[in-house]
Amino acid sequence: MRQKVILDCDPGHDDAIALLLAARHPALELLAVTTVAGNQSVEKTSLNALKVCSLANILEVPVAKGMNQPLIRPARHAADIHGDSGMDGPEMPPPTCSLVPQHAVDLLIEMLLQSDGDVVLIPTGPLTNIATAMRREPAILPKIQAISLMGGAISVGNVTASAEFNIWADPEAAALVFACGRPITMVPLEVTHQALATGEIMQRLKAMTGPVPAFVADLLTYFADSYRQVFGFPSPPIHDPCAVAALIDPDVIAYKEMHVAIECRGQWTEGRTICDIYGKTELPPNVRVGYALNFERFWTLLLDTLQLY
Amino acid sequence: MRQKVILDCDPGHDDAIALLLAARHPALELLAVTTVAGNQSVEKTSLNALKVCSLANILEVPVAKGMNQPLIRPARHAADIHGDSGMDGPEMPPPTCSLVPQHAVDLLIEMLLQSDGDVVLIPTGPLTNIATAMRREPAILPKIQAISLMGGAISVGNVTASAEFNIWADPEAAALVFACGRPITMVPLEVTHQALATGEIMQRLKAMTGPVPAFVADLLTYFADSYRQVFGFPSPPIHDPCAVAALIDPDVIAYKEMHVAIECRGQWTEGRTICDIYGKTELPPNVRVGYALNFERFWTLLLDTLQLY
Amino acid sequence: MRQKVILDCDPGHDDAIALLLAARHPALELLAVTTVAGNQSVEKTSLNALKVCSLANILEVPVAKGMNQPLIRPARHAADIHGDSGMDGPEMPPPTCSLVPQHAVDLLIEMLLQSDGDVVLIPTGPLTNIATAMRREPAILPKIQAISLMGGAISVGNVTASAEFNIWADPEAAALVFACGRPITMVPLEVTHQALATGEIMQRLKAMTGPVPAFVADLLTYFADSYRQVFGFPSPPIHDPCAVAALIDPDVIAYKEMHVAIECRGQWTEGRTICDIYGKTELPPNVRVGYALNFERFWTLLLDTLQLY
Amino acid sequence: MRQKVILDCDPGHDDAIALLLAARHPALELLAVTTVAGNQSVEKTSLNALKVCSLANILEVPVAKGMNQPLIRPARHAADIHGDSGMDGPEMPPPTCSLVPQHAVDLLIEMLLQSDGDVVLIPTGPLTNIATAMRREPAILPKIQAISLMGGAISVGNVTASAEFNIWADPEAAALVFACGRPITMVPLEVTHQALATGEIMQRLKAMTGPVPAFVADLLTYFADSYRQVFGFPSPPIHDPCAVAALIDPDVIAYKEMHVAIECRGQWTEGRTICDIYGKTELPPNVRVGYALNFERFWTLLLDTLQLY
Repeated sequence: MRQKVILDCDPGHDDAIALLLAARHPALELLAVTTVAGNQSVEKTSLNALKVCSLANILEVPVAKGMNQPLIRPARHAADIHGDSGMDGPEMPPPTCSLVPQHAVDLLIEMLLQSDGDVVLIPTGPLTNIATAMRREPAILPKIQAISLMGGAISVGNVTASAEFNIWADPEAAALVFACGRPITMVPLEVTHQALATGEIMQRLKAMTGPVPAFVADLLTYFADSYRQVFGFPSPPIHDPCAVAALIDPDVIAYKEMHVAIECRGQWTEGRTICDIYGKTELPPNVRVGYALNFERFWTLLLDTLQLY
Repeated sequence: MRQKVILDCDPGHDDAIALLLAARHPALELLAVTTVAGNQSVEKTSLNALKVCSLANILEVPVAKGMNQPLIRPARHAADIHGDSGMDGPEMPPPTCSLVPQHAVDLLIEMLLQSDGDVVLIPTGPLTNIATAMRREPAILPKIQAISLMGGAISVGNVTASAEFNIWADPEAAALVFACGRPITMVPLEVTHQALATGEIMQRLKAMTGPVPAFVADLLTYFADSYRQVFGFPSPPIHDPCAVAALIDPDVIAYKEMHVAIECRGQWTEGRTICDIYGKTELPPNVRVGYALNFERFWTLLLDTLQLY
Repeated sequence: MRQKVILDCDPGHDDAIALLLAARHPALELLAVTTVAGNQSVEKTSLNALKVCSLANILEVPVAKGMNQPLIRPARHAADIHGDSGMDGPEMPPPTCSLVPQHAVDLLIEMLLQSDGDVVLIPTGPLTNIATAMRREPAILPKIQAISLMGGAISVGNVTASAEFNIWADPEAAALVFACGRPITMVPLEVTHQALATGEIMQRLKAMTGPVPAFVADLLTYFADSYRQVFGFPSPPIHDPCAVAALIDPDVIAYKEMHVAIECRGQWTEGRTICDIYGKTELPPNVRVGYALNFERFWTLLLDTLQLY
Repeated sequence: MRQKVILDCDPGHDDAIALLLAARHPALELLAVTTVAGNQSVEKTSLNALKVCSLANILEVPVAKGMNQPLIRPARHAADIHGDSGMDGPEMPPPTCSLVPQHAVDLLIEMLLQSDGDVVLIPTGPLTNIATAMRREPAILPKIQAISLMGGAISVGNVTASAEFNIWADPEAAALVFACGRPITMVPLEVTHQALATGEIMQRLKAMTGPVPAFVADLLTYFADSYRQVFGFPSPPIHDPCAVAALIDPDVIAYKEMHVAIECRGQWTEGRTICDIYGKTELPPNVRVGYALNFERFWTLLLDTLQLY
């Protein structure tokens, strides 16, 4: 039986690949895609989600638009990395599918309340939708089987010296989700910075046929430029698919259980994920934190799935 | 000509070794030892400094007792690592030398004002004395040639998940010192955790003769136990001598210039050194941050100096 | 033409009286009652709202249940003032009317979007519903004619030395609402502490006939006990009806325009309304702050309306 | 026997009058004047103290210069109220007396340690000197008989909507002093704003003879202009002498005991004195807070003393 999942995302180059992986891998049943502001406004990330679904013929999955602003802060986007559209690079036609009328938060609440507690949430953007749903309807909490999210960092962030973008963009939402009491797998920068689309990977990708691999290649070409210019990385890291892969293959990432808190108050550290690797807080572990990626296993899993399109 | 230095310390096992290195290395002229609360109360760290000076016959250097409390916070010590005396382990007789009557802050101000601007400060404890002196007499600032300090961390702390002990114990003092405008070399945990007293090092140390190497071996035996129990380290890291070695040999540590800020306000991150390695703040570099240690070069420098006793 | 209003409340003794005033005063058209957690949980405040509507035969007005928790903080209630039910004192039968199925936030958004921009919001509890609606659907902002709220204090609070209960219970919601850009009238403790149900007022009230005045008298008898015990007040202040009266009669309260900010970060001052009466911030006024009540005018207005039941 | 006092001040118009009152009132023995940055830099406030002593022939009292910067914050002065010199208005010759060589903090520590615990401190500026002395030498604490300070506000501040200048200028120092455990009398704005130099008072003052009353009249003329322009006050409030008068005459001010905390962390409220008048914190009282002034008694006491010059 396939694992039911809802992907809550802000496409975003790597979100798009996460969506392609979640929609077609045989181990998963993608119940819905919910969108949120993050890499760009929710209007843009929603449009991008629809474009990806149209291109890849993912037409059976409802796509619902969610929150356009963090819980209490001004919106902050990542145009330096993802461009003005949030998914710059590939030339894409207008989508052929459309949003469901429901708001993402309402769809999350409805689907979870109607479920048998067997749905895993995969957030790959800021946690605004998830936190809003939890706050509005706490009865969803026991219905969430687990959360497998891309976000945070053990050591150094990417948007500030302290914080990773998804958590920094809405720290209060992250604080509520990390304290929710459900099983959480966190895939931080330490893992995703190992998921590099190296030259050899790009060759394997470009050797594949069909529009979806070509689209992914275009995404990664743009993304490579962003990461070279902003961070000096030789190859771009494919963050978000790691949180999907973590759910499919228990051996693709190595984990350690620990307490993770979110800094919402610092002058220099807002949005930091404080990963208590030495147990100094003496607080019980609330998160399974990834720290290493099996590179070959990850890329084989991802490329094999893209081949199914 | 020897480099004039003042060692501001809270012995402390590794502070004691830093003192031995600073007092006898031929490249340095140790003008004074000032003590501060940190690993233990200033009464205890002062007593420990005197004991080390007595044992090693360092009798020409004035030792002045300084601040017993951080600028504005309650005092917090590190008895779990350094024991109740602050330097547990070696059996030591009462000191044969004594403190000068001046307060450490007054001695710092006086020595700096009378200097030709050729004195480097080597703080290996909380920065309370240095910050208090700067605040009381700003005219010392242009007289400080440079500061070479042990403290902080780029990624993960040792006293909390975010902070290293010396900075955490008095974050406001650290914030004032890091913003003082003088050249600062910061030797963080990333460097000092490479300065491990491994089995092979301990063998070299135990092969040496005389009371000082034996004393150092006793210190490291106790320290090894602390680090095994608290952190699970196989060998103990010798933090503080790295800040002295940095001044003696420019090649013992590899550095990168960057902006470093101190978090004084976070709920989970107080005392963190925010090292802007990607230049995300766009603030000008104010610190030369060490990130790698030449292990053999460091230990040879240290052991060769201990051999001089 | 009557002024359209929506009452967002957490009954609450004085909320109940505010509801009675808003529902029957001929100058107002009460479009809806939305409930929020505050004086008690939203289950209890909703039940209380329904009981008041049943008793007073206010059956044409939809009552919608709203948020049970602040935006990001734990819920905090005021059982010391309002009792376990949130409206202790009067003996009341179960309600004969019921909640509409819509969530209060959805009802607020729908009613405002469908309006001609001629609706005034009257919040008399924490601002969670209003802030959530604004965050979820910013298009409601130009549709809000004005906001007339009970909350805050110029000088000293009632739940802490710094803060008034409604603002303190959800400071982040208050911060979003106070910064929303729409015309805001704030009726603070300085005004409501003048709206005392003195012995003479109680006599006038008890001289009235019918179940509604009798119910109000029972409310005030309980409330008088609370305020005597907790604050040592000789008579209880009737806070919330002042925010309704402010809308009915421009002369019942004296105002000054000023900038008002909400403290969300202090160690001792969270939830404080910082009323810049001397213009020290040089920020433009965003709130019309009440500072004096015309006692006789207020009570005549209120008692005359209660007489209509 | 006269009460021994040390005046710690930042003259400042009203500080100057406080100094004149403390130096000549027969109930007091002024042991020393210590200066601090506040209304202006410590260079300027020290010069002003010397000018006042010279003019009034107060030559037996040592004047020591103290801290020029708050404990951890940048210095902030009040030139809008006190002018560029810190005591603009009167034409004054250069002083004929000079500072003692000791630093104010050292003088405070020395005098207190040598005392019989019978010295009351009267701070009328930021509490930087007092806090620094307490931090440097905790043994002075039991030697402080009491502290009678001008500072803080129960309701609304004067430098921000939340804070009074003396506390706001160095909140961390105030927090240390207010928590020091010694008896504290706080004379807040609620009291000092009643100590107005009205037209009738000015007439009485101008009817007096000699250079000191004339100097005070000149001070108040300038001060009246400041307060009219900045705050719209019809007459200027004479803040600092109230803290001296409080010590001389127990009936000149009415007090209530309560817990007072200092806000050091707020976004809008830094430097606020949180006066827990309703006992909401359940913390034990640490301060006797003045709330009302006997106007005639105060002015008679002050003018009678000025007549002694």
